[in-house]
Amino acid sequence: MCRFLAYHGDPVYLDELVCAPTHSLVHQSLHAAEAKTETNGDGFGIGWYGERPEPGLYREVRPAWSDENLRSLSRQIRARTFFAHVRASTGTSTTRANCHPFAHGRHLFMHNGQIGGYGRIKRRLEALIPDALYESRQGSTDSEALFLLALANGVERDPVGAMAETLATVRGLMRQAGIDEPLRFTAILTDGEGLTAYRWACDGRPPSLYWRETASGLVVVSEPIDGRRDGWNVVPKGATLVARAGEATRLIEPDAAGRRFAATLAA
Amino acid sequence: MCRFLAYHGDPVYLDELVCAPTHSLVHQSLHAAEAKTETNGDGFGIGWYGERPEPGLYREVRPAWSDENLRSLSRQIRARTFFAHVRASTGTSTTRANCHPFAHGRHLFMHNGQIGGYGRIKRRLEALIPDALYESRQGSTDSEALFLLALANGVERDPVGAMAETLATVRGLMRQAGIDEPLRFTAILTDGEGLTAYRWACDGRPPSLYWRETASGLVVVSEPIDGRRDGWNVVPKGATLVARAGEATRLIEPDAAGRRFAATLAA
Amino acid sequence: MCRFLAYHGDPVYLDELVCAPTHSLVHQSLHAAEAKTETNGDGFGIGWYGERPEPGLYREVRPAWSDENLRSLSRQIRARTFFAHVRASTGTSTTRANCHPFAHGRHLFMHNGQIGGYGRIKRRLEALIPDALYESRQGSTDSEALFLLALANGVERDPVGAMAETLATVRGLMRQAGIDEPLRFTAILTDGEGLTAYRWACDGRPPSLYWRETASGLVVVSEPIDGRRDGWNVVPKGATLVARAGEATRLIEPDAAGRRFAATLAA
Amino acid sequence: MCRFLAYHGDPVYLDELVCAPTHSLVHQSLHAAEAKTETNGDGFGIGWYGERPEPGLYREVRPAWSDENLRSLSRQIRARTFFAHVRASTGTSTTRANCHPFAHGRHLFMHNGQIGGYGRIKRRLEALIPDALYESRQGSTDSEALFLLALANGVERDPVGAMAETLATVRGLMRQAGIDEPLRFTAILTDGEGLTAYRWACDGRPPSLYWRETASGLVVVSEPIDGRRDGWNVVPKGATLVARAGEATRLIEPDAAGRRFAATLAA
Repeated sequence: MCRFLAYHGDPVYLDELVCAPTHSLVHQSLHAAEAKTETNGDGFGIGWYGERPEPGLYREVRPAWSDENLRSLSRQIRARTFFAHVRASTGTSTTRANCHPFAHGRHLFMHNGQIGGYGRIKRRLEALIPDALYESRQGSTDSEALFLLALANGVERDPVGAMAETLATVRGLMRQAGIDEPLRFTAILTDGEGLTAYRWACDGRPPSLYWRETASGLVVVSEPIDGRRDGWNVVPKGATLVARAGEATRLIEPDAAGRRFAATLAA
Repeated sequence: MCRFLAYHGDPVYLDELVCAPTHSLVHQSLHAAEAKTETNGDGFGIGWYGERPEPGLYREVRPAWSDENLRSLSRQIRARTFFAHVRASTGTSTTRANCHPFAHGRHLFMHNGQIGGYGRIKRRLEALIPDALYESRQGSTDSEALFLLALANGVERDPVGAMAETLATVRGLMRQAGIDEPLRFTAILTDGEGLTAYRWACDGRPPSLYWRETASGLVVVSEPIDGRRDGWNVVPKGATLVARAGEATRLIEPDAAGRRFAATLAA
Repeated sequence: MCRFLAYHGDPVYLDELVCAPTHSLVHQSLHAAEAKTETNGDGFGIGWYGERPEPGLYREVRPAWSDENLRSLSRQIRARTFFAHVRASTGTSTTRANCHPFAHGRHLFMHNGQIGGYGRIKRRLEALIPDALYESRQGSTDSEALFLLALANGVERDPVGAMAETLATVRGLMRQAGIDEPLRFTAILTDGEGLTAYRWACDGRPPSLYWRETASGLVVVSEPIDGRRDGWNVVPKGATLVARAGEATRLIEPDAAGRRFAATLAA
Repeated sequence: MCRFLAYHGDPVYLDELVCAPTHSLVHQSLHAAEAKTETNGDGFGIGWYGERPEPGLYREVRPAWSDENLRSLSRQIRARTFFAHVRASTGTSTTRANCHPFAHGRHLFMHNGQIGGYGRIKRRLEALIPDALYESRQGSTDSEALFLLALANGVERDPVGAMAETLATVRGLMRQAGIDEPLRFTAILTDGEGLTAYRWACDGRPPSLYWRETASGLVVVSEPIDGRRDGWNVVPKGATLVARAGEATRLIEPDAAGRRFAATLAA
């Protein structure tokens, strides 16, 4: 389990959300309150959209709480859209390439959850990724493999449908392999111009996800960064939160998420 | 606050004490039970005596819990005397040079505690270290400075008296600077042929220290590595534990530690 | 291109070969003489056989020349068989998991060379690795994939034949993909009880490989560690060097390497 | 010896100077042409002025040539003033705290050179730094000690005079200690609003320093980043280059640098 934060709105300095609040993400790296693991010290990452079309990326293997570079970068960088993630490994090694967010072209992706029994389907799952995307695989996590498969399925054009299809494929592989452990998928995708946040699990126990709209923009978090629940909205289990520049943020409830997503949930 | 472990006796593999037990030091790096900080993830180190007169040293900035090298080395290395330490920084940066144990010639030293208000006396304390030893200073911790000053005071020949003198000097600097924060010093020193373990604090609240004699040798720990207190002896506050090859392990109680040590305690 | 060293014989301290000589492997990390790249600063690793059946492993992302841990470990560790490798990346990222040697059970493997156009056959090559071995893949290098495929082909039982078969398979994938870049494979495999050293390339230009028998044992190197060529034997292009405890070291010339190896060479 | 680059002018992306040119600083980390050491792989750092009064800082222990974070940050960050430095250690360990540039308040400082025989005067030099500045010492390099001493001498107000005084003090300590090795000091200081670049050595052999004014601003480098010397001006030995926003860049020749500087040179 990990902890993460995403922002989309008027440009703000990263440290206003990542470092400064009482229960900031950096604080959560040492003392998460709602996670299975209190410590999220197996590396971290930030991704942000500045003046370039593609995002910037800073990922490190150290714990976030002691990283001087993170503190300095978060004070300097202002962005209209950014991701931050502190990692608690579920088994893969602590390398930069295994730290979230993952970047591909204009997209960033980060994940909190796990493909149960991943080792038993890893090879078959990876073999589904087309060569052109496979070449860009840098690490060994289930999360990066999911992202590349989702890209292959067209997640840039159809963030909800293509992700549902991707998860359905993974569930299929898990069933074939007789895996009982659950697939849990709380995740966020962005192209810099909007966010899609997913909260889904095949056993009805996806990691927590909250959101709030402030005067400057939308904040989506694993757990409230002020340590209080009031003022924060829960993304319901099975739901998807969609934010686009110039549109109202909306929740797609499980039963409205379309044919493929419903099929996945039913599976 | 940190957690540490020392062993002296018949050669054993490090992992028998460092990695394998229920509440091993590696486990304590993530979940310490008796420490002010539960997480000790700001680097770690091991030091051991093999076939060379001087000790080997492996120190890393990553948390101990995720370090593959530590796991492999602990399975391979057998030693008659070794130290292991997991660090929770009290402010200095996470570098190898700031990780314990510190080595000098045939000696190893590690510390759990803090010189209160260190920043205000750092320069004057360091200026007391003779040039020959000063040149070997690699990091910026109070612990390394204490060790070098103790070496200057002859701690190789007189582990109890010279350390008492060193602490008395530090206390003097603290008083001159009007520092109210305490000096806490739970620490172990070795030349490979014996151990001297100190548990002292000017406010009567030194970090915990336990010891046990097993069939193979003496184990000294910040907290029991089996997660149970029975079978472990507490080193009393203000006392020093002394073990030498071929001699019975003995406790020097505060009032028997000699003139200089008593003077330090009284100060 | 990388530089490596292997030893097999009476136990010696690693630093006698890895750090101390004029043109030691650590020196080669900064100033290689016969390599395409003079600097081999993209991580390093050592693997050795001590008292356990499986080897110890220490791999780091820093350059070998500045690593204090490597210096200390090399002074402390004595082994009858050991590998050391300094890495110059051909594109994959600098992570511990991408550093050689690679360990599996009782085996160690290290490689100097490259699968040309690897990105274009990576997915198909990896899909040939059986699930049981695939799960243990930690990094993203062509070298580790080659090793796992060789294990699948039975390289533990038949070091020459199974490796030839493995390379033939890779060459087949390269031809299918229309890859013109060469496959170059200078590598060493050990189970701790002997060495098999390969020097092969489909374009007749495998990286250099030398060997020498000293009073204590066999040394195999990318380039002479004393900076002189006399006293060192060249492993001929296409040949394999085989050393087993209690047997004379022998060279299998290309035309004697058996049917499958010849077929590979002919391909 | 190290290599560095400084820029001051209209905002530009860092990668235009740090990564992109033929003989960029990142290229120089692997293949410096005019340095005593070709490889500058002992860590690196960048410092820049964005929208905050104090500079941002990113320092890492890996070689610059393989650092993905550096590539990404250099593509994202635009600054009107920035420093970049690739390090070749002269003995101190490879930690972030020993990487240049060093930051203090609004100032950045970086150095290429060495205090000869530093170990023999380290303690006395450091003892001259006032407590308030001493507390902010993080590493163990001679360069950081020089910077803190210069700050104590008022280098913010008088960049040329206070630095001359600082070097005179160091030369005095060296003479007292009977040190024959030279003091070499090619360095740059900035408060974000201007640059002061020094090229001085007591043996007349300071590391190289070049400058050029482009359409967008002033570039100061250890060696030309286009691999050609034409178009670049040499900062003469003993001279100081001064650039302030709104003023013409000017060279202070050795004999015009004022009383204290001349005294230092004469010493």
